[in-house]
Amino acid sequence: MEKTNLQTDKEINDITVDKQTFKDGSICGYDSLHTLLSANLKPHIFQEVSRLLLGLNCGKPLELIALPASVKAIFCEHDFDLQAFSFRAEKELLRAPHVVRVGLIQNSIALPTTAHFLDQKRAIYQKLKLMIDAAGASGVNILCLQEAWMMPFAFCTREKSWCEFAEPVDGESTRFLQELAQKYNMVIVSPILERDVNHGDTIWNTAVIIGNHGNIIGKHRKNHIPRVGDFNESTYYMEGNTGHPVFETAYGKIAVNICYGRHHPLNWLAFGLNGAEIVFNPSATVGELSEPMWPIEARNAAIANSYFVGSINRVGTEVFPNPFTSGDGKPQHADFGHFYGSSHFSAPDASCTPSLSRHRDGLLISDMDLNLCRQLKDKWGFRMTARYELYADLLARYLKPDYEPQVISDPLLHKKSS
Amino acid sequence: MEKTNLQTDKEINDITVDKQTFKDGSICGYDSLHTLLSANLKPHIFQEVSRLLLGLNCGKPLELIALPASVKAIFCEHDFDLQAFSFRAEKELLRAPHVVRVGLIQNSIALPTTAHFLDQKRAIYQKLKLMIDAAGASGVNILCLQEAWMMPFAFCTREKSWCEFAEPVDGESTRFLQELAQKYNMVIVSPILERDVNHGDTIWNTAVIIGNHGNIIGKHRKNHIPRVGDFNESTYYMEGNTGHPVFETAYGKIAVNICYGRHHPLNWLAFGLNGAEIVFNPSATVGELSEPMWPIEARNAAIANSYFVGSINRVGTEVFPNPFTSGDGKPQHADFGHFYGSSHFSAPDASCTPSLSRHRDGLLISDMDLNLCRQLKDKWGFRMTARYELYADLLARYLKPDYEPQVISDPLLHKKSS
Repeated sequence: MEKTNLQTDKEINDITVDKQTFKDGSICGYDSLHTLLSANLKPHIFQEVSRLLLGLNCGKPLELIALPASVKAIFCEHDFDLQAFSFRAEKELLRAPHVVRVGLIQNSIALPTTAHFLDQKRAIYQKLKLMIDAAGASGVNILCLQEAWMMPFAFCTREKSWCEFAEPVDGESTRFLQELAQKYNMVIVSPILERDVNHGDTIWNTAVIIGNHGNIIGKHRKNHIPRVGDFNESTYYMEGNTGHPVFETAYGKIAVNICYGRHHPLNWLAFGLNGAEIVFNPSATVGELSEPMWPIEARNAAIANSYFVGSINRVGTEVFPNPFTSGDGKPQHADFGHFYGSSHFSAPDASCTPSLSRHRDGLLISDMDLNLCRQLKDKWGFRMTARYELYADLLARYLKPDYEPQVISDPLLHKKSS
Repeated sequence: MEKTNLQTDKEINDITVDKQTFKDGSICGYDSLHTLLSANLKPHIFQEVSRLLLGLNCGKPLELIALPASVKAIFCEHDFDLQAFSFRAEKELLRAPHVVRVGLIQNSIALPTTAHFLDQKRAIYQKLKLMIDAAGASGVNILCLQEAWMMPFAFCTREKSWCEFAEPVDGESTRFLQELAQKYNMVIVSPILERDVNHGDTIWNTAVIIGNHGNIIGKHRKNHIPRVGDFNESTYYMEGNTGHPVFETAYGKIAVNICYGRHHPLNWLAFGLNGAEIVFNPSATVGELSEPMWPIEARNAAIANSYFVGSINRVGTEVFPNPFTSGDGKPQHADFGHFYGSSHFSAPDASCTPSLSRHRDGLLISDMDLNLCRQLKDKWGFRMTARYELYADLLARYLKPDYEPQVISDPLLHKKSS
């Protein structure tokens, strides 16, 4: 049975939810929060819940986009998730609409981590080719892949052998995508593990921006590196040195906030100050750690900065050859936890799309009128009311080792109650 | 029938939801998103939805707090909402738990806006006294009231006569609360319309912090002033000049981010840099404008800054004597829209309480171990990985009129596709 953007509330009413629970307490047998709610709530109640949760005006669902039958057939065959929505914007009198079609791909690895590295890479390319072809055939203008899409997310192991996967910005995976970008006249954002051969083989976590003519427009290196849970990324690479670039592409101004950077409101802000209209957040994150934060941070960034956000998380559970401990006192184990997918788009008007599956590979497409960004700036005036001078001053003072916080203590703090 | 924190999923299963819709598209007949979901989903599905939406570990509900029967009886009699939860935190080996009981009050005005101003004030005091007595009897340590609680939210009218409600920091409403603070050994945060008689009768939007001995600890003035919808607040008062103070009280370090300041991540950040453990967000906001943003911004602030957030919104619809237009091309009308209540607490671990009613006055109480703040700082390391030097520099440059955004343009931008 096809499970795509064409399914209606009625069609998914047959979803049964298994009471069996995973290690992280989640239950099995459903695809996403959206399908769980739509399958189990009466339509008028689901409408009200959608109004509150998805920020949909009067609870009216986002319009669906019709996709080519060939694309739907291929995704059905592979049991990939496929959803496509159109955000709403006002018509303006002095500017034509600036509608772009944007795609996000989430995927599991294609071979076990025990397979030969070369085979693992080839298998991922093969799977991705199929999904990128589908995006191209669907008329996607800008496509973003997940963080370090060309390898397993092996940083939990602390083993340096996985660095073999790292490539220069103009390496094999970039060349693979350049061909597809040119073929489909499509901008592709490719987050890879980068090997900087011109700087002593330094490793970075980098997004390569490939233009719609297949040219490399530039790169951005991940600004904030986690040291939490099994995300031992600081063992592999350091904080990026590329600032907060916004890439002016044929279709719009885009930027990339890689993974853990989504926890840093200042990182989101900086891309906004530089004029981003769409910020991608290619990620790899697991359920027990971050799932309740996942829909919050991206939507907050879209609202606060008046731009669109495309959030991508990989899917599946990756099991590694050698067991490792996780600094939590628990016995050694060989997997990272469940990458819960749930890729989605957030808009500056606080609306968002439903999320892709928590379990399946998928392609999410959305049409968005980039005029909406300025419309929301004009409406809410966040930039004008932001008083940046206060914060430039505060941060400059805070940086000093002898910073004294502004604290007003109750002079009666140590008086006993009468 | 009593609708309090003691109700279980089963007890509220008899909630019927009316299909009639309000002007803003919301449906009638339900109290909050939480009750809507719990009444309409099977328990194991509600549990999974709670895990995702409320950030509850394994979907396990927050523990309820038992409140005095006398308090429950009074709230039942007045059909006020009453809910009380306890957040979870780890036990530490070198620090004792630092549990405080915190309360939020949301209320509608007590008399029509056409009543004599003096009668309106007296009626609000009378209603608030009852609710504050209940908080005191429930052992609340820190209590926060809603924005400009001592008057209708009249800024939609642009009429200056409402400035009569403004009071000095040590004025009538403060004296009213000082007595209650001392009686109940309770810190009270009182957001008022302030008249600064020592500076030429300047009007401010101010929170007065009253210590548990009834003393005035200090004040904070709203930093960011909206110019959106019917929020003509810049007609009445200017941006605050008190910085981002954190008040060290007998029970913990608190700060106040007043209303529209919640849209500014830098404002939240500044209170965090100054060491806040709980930040209150007393607000007045209406459904059509902000309801889908309401749960996002507060939770994001709690996550990003590793502190608790207490969000308060007034309830009800306030109708004014003289009709006014709203700059939206629609005919004149006399009301501001529906203040949707929905006050709630957010915790630094991404969990949150259910919200108070969208329609009824209410008191929300929560026990929180302030040790959780540092536990989350140690876990996630957001402060250490924040690279503030990048942003101090960026903001300093951005302030200059000739700031040039960091934009990398595709050199093939104007090349036609092959």
